[in-house]
Amino acid sequence: MEQRISLVTLGVADLARSKAFYEQLGWHGQEVQQTVFIQAGGIALVLWSRDKLAADCGLQDEKADGFGGIVLAHNVRCAGEVDTILAAAASAGATVTRTPSETFYGGYAGVFSDPDGHAWEVAFNPGFALAEDGTLTIPDLSA
Amino acid sequence: MEQRISLVTLGVADLARSKAFYEQLGWHGQEVQQTVFIQAGGIALVLWSRDKLAADCGLQDEKADGFGGIVLAHNVRCAGEVDTILAAAASAGATVTRTPSETFYGGYAGVFSDPDGHAWEVAFNPGFALAEDGTLTIPDLSA
Repeated sequence: MEQRISLVTLGVADLARSKAFYEQLGWHGQEVQQTVFIQAGGIALVLWSRDKLAADCGLQDEKADGFGGIVLAHNVRCAGEVDTILAAAASAGATVTRTPSETFYGGYAGVFSDPDGHAWEVAFNPGFALAEDGTLTIPDLSA
Repeated sequence: MEQRISLVTLGVADLARSKAFYEQLGWHGQEVQQTVFIQAGGIALVLWSRDKLAADCGLQDEKADGFGGIVLAHNVRCAGEVDTILAAAASAGATVTRTPSETFYGGYAGVFSDPDGHAWEVAFNPGFALAEDGTLTIPDLSA
């Protein structure tokens, strides 16, 4: 099994609402068969009915409102971008669950949750440089 | 905001168990400060304490056992790989929640959940070709 994630699918309660939320943040995709496919670097972010997603995976959905156990991170190139994106997310209807602040690793980051409660950390991490094309390569952490 | 996911962090109950599970599937990373960072194409898969992850994000964790609302997909290059990976995941302690079968889009896919219940679809999708480097580009779906 190669070390690769191909798609990240977010289960959503209201596809139109979620699509509008991500569009307001500048994320545009293609909608087909009540599913939105958004290119995100070399992978795809997918928005699909939470009910259908759970059923499709053979999983019971207890519909807990809280933390789902997974956090996505969007890393940026400077601290200022963190503030800009958190503000844009709040304007688009997100809840800022951690206001941006300096981090122990010498970066700057904050967290918002989208209309379905999916958590996104927006982070400037000077130790995890982003390539020109946005890809992230983990540095040698033993150094 | 560029269309990019930089990291996917899985909240886990037992870091050693999760690290061993992913290593058995061939995923190797670097452990530092009780966190495992695994390079996954141009992004990082991170394993970290679920409690710490929730607290770090300012989120309440109801510790629901069921579906967390997000599904990761690992796409492969042929149908046979789906069976191989699902079998390997089951051997490593995963629960196969959907046995591999043909899909409506002409592919072949199955789903497993990892020791913490995080769902992974393993899919062969001939319509979503993978590049040599494993990146996925969404085709024109209106065609």
